[in-house]
Amino acid sequence: MMNSRAAEELSARLSRPELLVTDFSDYEAYLHDATNDRGKPGALVFAETEGDVAAAVDFCRAHSLALVPRGAGTGLSGGCVPAEGSLVLSTERMRRLTIDRESRTALCGPGVITKELLDKAAEFGLTYPPDPASYDESTLGGNVAENAGGLRCLRFGVTRDYVIGLRGVTVSGERMATGVLSKSKGFNLGDVLIGSEGTLLIITEIAVRLIPTPRVGDTILAAFGDPVDAARTVRDITRSGMVPTVLEYLDGDAAECSNKYEKTEGVERAAAILLVETPAENRQALTAAVRSFCRKNSCSHLRVESDENRVEQLWRIRRNLSNAVKEMATVRVSEDVAVPISKFPVLIDFVAEMNRTSPLRINAFGHAGDGNLHVNFLSMTGEDKDYQIMEQDIARLLKRTVELGGTLSGEHGVGLAKRRYLPLEFDGPTLDGMKRIKFIFDPQNLLNPGKIFPGP
Amino acid sequence: MMNSRAAEELSARLSRPELLVTDFSDYEAYLHDATNDRGKPGALVFAETEGDVAAAVDFCRAHSLALVPRGAGTGLSGGCVPAEGSLVLSTERMRRLTIDRESRTALCGPGVITKELLDKAAEFGLTYPPDPASYDESTLGGNVAENAGGLRCLRFGVTRDYVIGLRGVTVSGERMATGVLSKSKGFNLGDVLIGSEGTLLIITEIAVRLIPTPRVGDTILAAFGDPVDAARTVRDITRSGMVPTVLEYLDGDAAECSNKYEKTEGVERAAAILLVETPAENRQALTAAVRSFCRKNSCSHLRVESDENRVEQLWRIRRNLSNAVKEMATVRVSEDVAVPISKFPVLIDFVAEMNRTSPLRINAFGHAGDGNLHVNFLSMTGEDKDYQIMEQDIARLLKRTVELGGTLSGEHGVGLAKRRYLPLEFDGPTLDGMKRIKFIFDPQNLLNPGKIFPGP
Repeated sequence: MMNSRAAEELSARLSRPELLVTDFSDYEAYLHDATNDRGKPGALVFAETEGDVAAAVDFCRAHSLALVPRGAGTGLSGGCVPAEGSLVLSTERMRRLTIDRESRTALCGPGVITKELLDKAAEFGLTYPPDPASYDESTLGGNVAENAGGLRCLRFGVTRDYVIGLRGVTVSGERMATGVLSKSKGFNLGDVLIGSEGTLLIITEIAVRLIPTPRVGDTILAAFGDPVDAARTVRDITRSGMVPTVLEYLDGDAAECSNKYEKTEGVERAAAILLVETPAENRQALTAAVRSFCRKNSCSHLRVESDENRVEQLWRIRRNLSNAVKEMATVRVSEDVAVPISKFPVLIDFVAEMNRTSPLRINAFGHAGDGNLHVNFLSMTGEDKDYQIMEQDIARLLKRTVELGGTLSGEHGVGLAKRRYLPLEFDGPTLDGMKRIKFIFDPQNLLNPGKIFPGP
Repeated sequence: MMNSRAAEELSARLSRPELLVTDFSDYEAYLHDATNDRGKPGALVFAETEGDVAAAVDFCRAHSLALVPRGAGTGLSGGCVPAEGSLVLSTERMRRLTIDRESRTALCGPGVITKELLDKAAEFGLTYPPDPASYDESTLGGNVAENAGGLRCLRFGVTRDYVIGLRGVTVSGERMATGVLSKSKGFNLGDVLIGSEGTLLIITEIAVRLIPTPRVGDTILAAFGDPVDAARTVRDITRSGMVPTVLEYLDGDAAECSNKYEKTEGVERAAAILLVETPAENRQALTAAVRSFCRKNSCSHLRVESDENRVEQLWRIRRNLSNAVKEMATVRVSEDVAVPISKFPVLIDFVAEMNRTSPLRINAFGHAGDGNLHVNFLSMTGEDKDYQIMEQDIARLLKRTVELGGTLSGEHGVGLAKRRYLPLEFDGPTLDGMKRIKFIFDPQNLLNPGKIFPGP
């Protein structure tokens, strides 16, 4: 815990002294994100203004103290788990939000919740496509720090594709702004900052572009008796050249978890589920094609819905999953690998085989259209030996993913969870380049230390 | 010119000695890009393999010689104009091209011409959207170095949005690969390299994603008696929430230049022209809306075409422009500013006013839907006083653009042409961050020195 003299010094610099918290008993949520790791920070600041952010940065620099920024804490890689003795900086109260309807842009404080932005944009017939599963809690600041993806990213792209400008405070206390629209000249500092997991600077304002709300066609639920049949259907859809707005895969065990959480007709006893959304503009052709691919690949249950309530029910199968799987087990570790779409059936097969041979319960679901699969490793008991098996299984999965030309993380980031595996994917000069960029932004290693990079 | 001992040493390291050229009399084109600046290099290497690139890099490092990479030389910011005594490295012969149909990706050598990629992708029903006006000459390497845009970028995004991986040789001679699909973790080195104008490393391979070829609806030509009416039409289309695939603006003088180059019905005596392409999926609704906005804003001539040949003729109005304007004058300097779309009418008005008050001939055209305007400053005589006026006018335009929340370059890059104006747009910490990134990649300042940054 931070000593009282230091606390007094820091709180005097904030816009209101009560923004500093040194007793975490009412703030347990600030010790972790959605993974299993817990940190032991020294204090917590709720920044309400850019001045509060600068005060926290200046204090940490003066005292060589680690500073760990956080949004809503919904991350899945330990990205905001506090370093020992660190100052946690929550930006969730920085919620200023303005929309320029004509230019189709929004200016957001880092604490704006994704769903707030979606709702506000919807008033103007606009939307912000990157929608992580936790979109009703996750903040824009956290989304930018992790370069969040989501269900609609298949057709519309990820956070990086929508951020057009950033403002932040560097560790030296300077304000830095990457210009709105400035994606075409100079070095793209904005794009280095997106996905930098709070290790380079503290984001205080985010400019994003919006798009006219796309009209949705049909939502399709297809159940299969064999996961490989589902994977083949994904491949057939991809080969057709038509792009659904959403294309999600759940294996039988994930479907069962979801169905226990909330029952949905057609999900029971399936070995795999696909959820497909077609866009209004080629609804007829694409829905018909999906139907015929499902039948060809021995689909056991098929529903096509367009009624709003019934569609909402179908999406709950997917949106409930993260919590449903978490509740199922004592310990859940979730990986989010991604492979080129042509290798997706191979990956599905590999995970099914791993599930058959491992003593752990393993299930998988994800953005199939992007080749992105969330693989969950579950321990029912939380015993030490399960952790060891988990570590071996995860290493096997990640190694196989990289062999298939894929990536360790489709959208969750590196954080604590994947840092040791980074050298699997990146060569020495690339890792070295990243480390040198970290050094020029943060030579004392004060900003979110210990994240992203494997040990020294 | 490079001395013969050095030339001997270098040519011996190349895969074939004749890849080295020291006499530029047959290679005048390699002294410049599409701007007016000419360089005085010492020699030229045509790299055919990554080994040739590494040999050139090693040679330059050993001799502290500047190395200036280039693609087709179609750039509009002096980005590949050779530094004095430098070694020019052409990658235009590195033309390996393979397409993975199922994953919708292409692996390209830096010398692959944009149109080659488009043609090859078209065989699989796929396309690569970023299409600079010079797409039948420009290379993928050059496109990546400049983060090239194009006519279709309004709906589909720029080069940055399609590059999923890069391979290159660093100045220390190391091979560096940013992983395919690796856009979500670690620092985004790939995105720093895109648009870095050959100042950070030499690109030797580019992985891009492709999309199913979008079906085109109608192509519309609309002529106006007043540029402000055309700008209002752009604003009305934008406000409608429907997004055309292309939305181009030409002022009267630009239209006249194009019409002198190749005559097209309806273009003569117009004060402004819009060219609009609607996508097949909402062809009817969007074409009808465009028609009605054009009429409301007193359009003087309107044509809606869908016949392939007649459509092609309409696009030549736009594609001919760069050459047409260049032929018109002794000296042409082309700026490509961009502003938030809500400020586009203000920008149009400012340029029209500048044209009325300046002794120079000034015209403008551009990707109106993106708020991107190419403003051309023409001197008929090439006299010194014209250069001085040009400099003043350009400074006024760029200052006004930044005041409107815009950017100095929508798509052409900084190069030599805009480096002195960079501090208008970027604050000190941001410029400093860029310089530090340059230093860690290239501490001796050997790669394309003198580009992007204002003098020391």
